[in-house]
Amino acid sequence: MSGTPLDDAALDLLFREARTYYSWDSTPVSEADLRALYDLVKMGPTSANCCPARFLFVASDDARARLAATASEANGPKILAAPVTAIIGFDRKFYDKLPQLFPHADARSWFTGDDAMARETAFRNSSLQGAYFILAARALGWDTGPMSGFDKAAVDAQFWAGTDVETNFICSLGKGTTEKLFPRSPRLAFEDAATIL
Amino acid sequence: MSGTPLDDAALDLLFREARTYYSWDSTPVSEADLRALYDLVKMGPTSANCCPARFLFVASDDARARLAATASEANGPKILAAPVTAIIGFDRKFYDKLPQLFPHADARSWFTGDDAMARETAFRNSSLQGAYFILAARALGWDTGPMSGFDKAAVDAQFWAGTDVETNFICSLGKGTTEKLFPRSPRLAFEDAATIL
Repeated sequence: MSGTPLDDAALDLLFREARTYYSWDSTPVSEADLRALYDLVKMGPTSANCCPARFLFVASDDARARLAATASEANGPKILAAPVTAIIGFDRKFYDKLPQLFPHADARSWFTGDDAMARETAFRNSSLQGAYFILAARALGWDTGPMSGFDKAAVDAQFWAGTDVETNFICSLGKGTTEKLFPRSPRLAFEDAATIL
Repeated sequence: MSGTPLDDAALDLLFREARTYYSWDSTPVSEADLRALYDLVKMGPTSANCCPARFLFVASDDARARLAATASEANGPKILAAPVTAIIGFDRKFYDKLPQLFPHADARSWFTGDDAMARETAFRNSSLQGAYFILAARALGWDTGPMSGFDKAAVDAQFWAGTDVETNFICSLGKGTTEKLFPRSPRLAFEDAATIL
């Protein structure tokens, strides 16, 4: 069901003019907004439909303060300033849901005997889902601020204790304001990143 | 520069109605098409703008036969049937391009002393870029068929010998046909994958 390409305004919104934001206006992000966002993110493809990503939407003052305390000096204030910051994690035991998610085959058995392969699958596919999160948010008119600068062990201990989930990265969400933006950074030319064989 | 949300047709094209394809009509994918696709993919955000993904577009009969020989029994014929299959890899020494890509700070030094952290950064961010590839292709009216079932060591040896790149996953590209599609698989409910704190 490939279709008509999106128009320039849509490609600008998703890719060309979109930026990473760390300052935000006062527009709130509601539970309905988060559910609408998840309903797009969940549709993105993962291998064997394994859907390993788990999302904690850090929105209350208390939870934002706890998350900010785990972040780098640069990132703590960004978390406090954002209406919501998602902790995007992955379930190391994602395979226990495969009988539901991939009814075509006994996919659970592909992973249960190989922790390293299971973890790599969870990390790869939750990263894909993190990217779907960023682009789905933009598609819905939101801005995002993904971050890797935080104490992962502290976030895991504070937010995922008692689960099989560990943190991949975090990503703020809201309506960005432009006053703190860097000039856009360069990208690699096609010849520096791609070859046609 | 958040903006007007995309309309339902665009959200369907990107997320709701899009599917993973493994059979293809005769529409060719040209070099101009691949360059237009890369020009969107490259704009997606990566941490410190590290852009670790490298793309080999496997299009010739010879290259497709070589790639198909590395794949699982199920995936070999899919590679032979597709007009193009991209090998999406990551450069373990991506940091050598950071003086160009992230001129704001000495970001190269964050990675040069820690191979494990550099590799994790490359894997995470090239996975994000792989997801941008899937969604940018859909935005341009193409279909995709991402695959993880192949002999990674063989692909690395065959296609990235003499480089610092290793394979993340592969993804076919073209105009899909629907005769081999499974019924759509279920997804996790919001409550099974997300919590608001």
